[in-house]
Amino acid sequence: MTRSWWGWGNVEDAVGGAELGALLDRVRVLMPGDLTDHEPPGVDSLGLPAPRVTAPASLAALCSAEPADRAAHAHGKAFRDVVRNLQGDLRHVPDLVARPRDERDVTDLLDWCSREGIAVIPFGGGSSVVGGVEPRCTGHPAVVTMDLERMDRVLEVDGTSRAARIQAGVFGPHLEDQLRPHGLTLRHFPQSFEFSTLGGWLATRAGGHYATLHTHIDDLVESMRVVTPSGVSASRRLPGSGAGPSPDRLFLGSEGTLGVITEAWMRLQQRPRWRARASVRFGDYTVAVAATRAIAQSGLNPANCRLLDAAEALINAGVSVGGGVLVLGFESADHPVHRSLERALELCRDHGGEPSPDAGGEPRDGEPGGGEPGGEEGGGPDVRTWRSSFLRMPYQRDALARHSVIAETFETACTWDGFETLHRAVTEAARQAMREVAGTGVVTCRFTHVYPDGPAPYFGVYAPGRWGDLVAQWDHIKAAVSEAIETSGGTITHHHAVGRDHRPWYDRQRPAPFAAALSAAKTALDPAGVLNPGVLLPAP
Amino acid sequence: MTRSWWGWGNVEDAVGGAELGALLDRVRVLMPGDLTDHEPPGVDSLGLPAPRVTAPASLAALCSAEPADRAAHAHGKAFRDVVRNLQGDLRHVPDLVARPRDERDVTDLLDWCSREGIAVIPFGGGSSVVGGVEPRCTGHPAVVTMDLERMDRVLEVDGTSRAARIQAGVFGPHLEDQLRPHGLTLRHFPQSFEFSTLGGWLATRAGGHYATLHTHIDDLVESMRVVTPSGVSASRRLPGSGAGPSPDRLFLGSEGTLGVITEAWMRLQQRPRWRARASVRFGDYTVAVAATRAIAQSGLNPANCRLLDAAEALINAGVSVGGGVLVLGFESADHPVHRSLERALELCRDHGGEPSPDAGGEPRDGEPGGGEPGGEEGGGPDVRTWRSSFLRMPYQRDALARHSVIAETFETACTWDGFETLHRAVTEAARQAMREVAGTGVVTCRFTHVYPDGPAPYFGVYAPGRWGDLVAQWDHIKAAVSEAIETSGGTITHHHAVGRDHRPWYDRQRPAPFAAALSAAKTALDPAGVLNPGVLLPAP
Repeated sequence: MTRSWWGWGNVEDAVGGAELGALLDRVRVLMPGDLTDHEPPGVDSLGLPAPRVTAPASLAALCSAEPADRAAHAHGKAFRDVVRNLQGDLRHVPDLVARPRDERDVTDLLDWCSREGIAVIPFGGGSSVVGGVEPRCTGHPAVVTMDLERMDRVLEVDGTSRAARIQAGVFGPHLEDQLRPHGLTLRHFPQSFEFSTLGGWLATRAGGHYATLHTHIDDLVESMRVVTPSGVSASRRLPGSGAGPSPDRLFLGSEGTLGVITEAWMRLQQRPRWRARASVRFGDYTVAVAATRAIAQSGLNPANCRLLDAAEALINAGVSVGGGVLVLGFESADHPVHRSLERALELCRDHGGEPSPDAGGEPRDGEPGGGEPGGEEGGGPDVRTWRSSFLRMPYQRDALARHSVIAETFETACTWDGFETLHRAVTEAARQAMREVAGTGVVTCRFTHVYPDGPAPYFGVYAPGRWGDLVAQWDHIKAAVSEAIETSGGTITHHHAVGRDHRPWYDRQRPAPFAAALSAAKTALDPAGVLNPGVLLPAP
Repeated sequence: MTRSWWGWGNVEDAVGGAELGALLDRVRVLMPGDLTDHEPPGVDSLGLPAPRVTAPASLAALCSAEPADRAAHAHGKAFRDVVRNLQGDLRHVPDLVARPRDERDVTDLLDWCSREGIAVIPFGGGSSVVGGVEPRCTGHPAVVTMDLERMDRVLEVDGTSRAARIQAGVFGPHLEDQLRPHGLTLRHFPQSFEFSTLGGWLATRAGGHYATLHTHIDDLVESMRVVTPSGVSASRRLPGSGAGPSPDRLFLGSEGTLGVITEAWMRLQQRPRWRARASVRFGDYTVAVAATRAIAQSGLNPANCRLLDAAEALINAGVSVGGGVLVLGFESADHPVHRSLERALELCRDHGGEPSPDAGGEPRDGEPGGGEPGGEEGGGPDVRTWRSSFLRMPYQRDALARHSVIAETFETACTWDGFETLHRAVTEAARQAMREVAGTGVVTCRFTHVYPDGPAPYFGVYAPGRWGDLVAQWDHIKAAVSEAIETSGGTITHHHAVGRDHRPWYDRQRPAPFAAALSAAKTALDPAGVLNPGVLLPAP
């Protein structure tokens, strides 16, 4: 397999053939436009500027100045990143890509960069969709991207406490491969699972497999090691503590601005043996939301609880329904869960929901395939179609970008009492912005996670674009919906992180005294101000 | 009812009569010694020094210089606090007690104190057992204790999202009284429930009702308002967010060093309708621990899961058993939970546990009394005896202190793989220290909370003391067990907080770079260094 330098995942997995034909057929129906294919440029044609810095001899072996390497580390994987790559627009490229082998290397690299004032961008899988790894750092003589991919091992497993000490650079599948012989799993499956790392999940407070309870990676952390320019911060392995403000919670979500996460003790699970799943159709969206809220407040704690609105159900699950489809899943390694599903379906029926014919939810002992991302086998055709679509989405997004179709997502969270207002404001803002820049477009919504006090809505936007204008078109839409989220009381991000792109709205959302505290903490830990400048805080 | 100035709770609820007789009879059996009763001194006899400061006219109405007020705010409610009160040893007394009526008053008081360099001690119920409210602040011209008791209202209830905006100074019972008409409850019941406040719980990361999942108050917080000398930090109401490091998590556990928490939006629950409880006896403690671990890792998530060791069972539940007693409880507002109890009992039986005869765990719909602290009605005689004892413990501790008996608790948390070592080290350290200072003594252990990756053990110490030496005796024991906890990898506190008394071990446990970050954050928020000096961080 070959990683794509310009787009998602592996070159060999790109959308093509019949899948591409079907995709474009659907696009033609929804939003006719110019569907010319624009092939990605070769790396050699990009004309990257020469690196502005050379690593000292002691670090030279860790550093690459290869154009392909530098190009592949210039952008994240947002729509606007992929489009800029396709157009050969790489304005900010790291001068070097450094690949430390261990914590000593991380420390030495940070020492060198701090001394020279060189910006350092910690890099995991590079799947940021918020400009989190893009070296827009104009105030520094050079930029080094620190790619942790060589630090990819599970170092210790404690089967008694069900925890493991894991290096930050490990990618999802390789992590699970190393845990599988122990009968354990981290069970953290963000959509980016295959191409993102533990360190990236921790630095960005990634959202994972569980729709309820353990929604963010935060809750799976027992302790962390973080190399800062001011020393190594190593917290103690604890199942819980009340000793002052949590050290880990300062580094969770710090997005590479306070230090480089090198390893963590993570809480693991037994692989699930019992499962029950179903999908439920609703004729009315408001009622579907009320049913989902009832389940979120029931204490049943489903592993999966995704409400797809009618547009999402149609486009990504091929289901035509008036209100929406609720995808439900329960799982356990210890006990049958079909009664939990039955109770959830009862709550749905109370709200007029219609469970799928095959959604009986009989327990299945030892069903295979339980460790896989999006692994919601069974549960009716709606579920299966949606899941397969879920895993192909990033690849399809790239194919659409090549054909000048705007296709991107954004997400938030809000309290239940504010959801209707936020949903309307965001949907209207998206439609209005799409009308302005593209004449038309479709906006979809699903819940990725739900809490007793509110949902995490995830929106999709699809609009016909114009080659050459795609980034400007998208930026206009993104600004409009971000404004709507911020003024409706939502968070600018539930699990995509802040990066550089969310800064204007994050700055308004964040309490000013906390900004001052965070800034002071950064100065204490990174006195030279070299760590990921411009992310979370203004560049120095 | 009259609050005791020197001891726990209300004067009228103090141990006396038959309860006192029975208590002393038990003490005589276990540890013979001089049981003379030492009555508390009158406040007038304490000879408090005159206040060193006068409030400006604009704030004078908020401030009290009454000796009884100042004496009642001089200490927390630890054993060493009560003993010092009984001995009339009040070395550090606040000069004034200020009672702000609203956020404006809090700001004005902070402004005045910052200007004059006067230390400010935020004060909720004053139930600290770690010196968290004791004005040992020698580097300041005066000390003002800010008692939030006037800010005690539930300001808004959002029934849809099940959340409420609540002022920080409200005590547990008054908080629940205000939520009851809405059919909702915070369901946070620390042992101090009756005499502690929401703001205190938040500032100290209090541990509450739930033995699993939502163990600390942290998880029940939707947003917070904190008045700092640098402005008001108001986070947004969100069910979840990934926008940078969590602002609330910086203030949770800040113990009054970063600002004064004035209100919070808290997540609420429906009052439980379904309950199932049991107690299980084990012949061997190691096996009892293994059974408890199996339940903690099962995903059954009991609301109550307290393993009492043999000494705890004997002393506080009147049960004679070789290994221990596991007290289990499940509850739900939505669905029956007897099957969860059945599965937990099955796990216990697999480990040789014997459920109590009446522990059938039939569901009871609408059983009354569900909102009460320690409200585990039914569940067998072991459970009932232990619960009644639980609520009387602080009063009994005071009675014992008056009779020169050392009686105190301390707590920690650790991973399961390290528990046996920690338990042995702590128990041996306690016994050795008791031998050294008291000749003999008893140490007990129970789990207050359990996690998939480890328990939170809570220890009790009972030893014969000598009037006049009690504080020194206890301090010797406390230092020994704290040393054992720290070197065994535990946390110096799971939910009692750090305060001033845990500082030496907290300082070793806390990662140095995090200490630097926290210190920088404090300087940014409290530039004059007046907020609770000496707590968490060295006094300036």
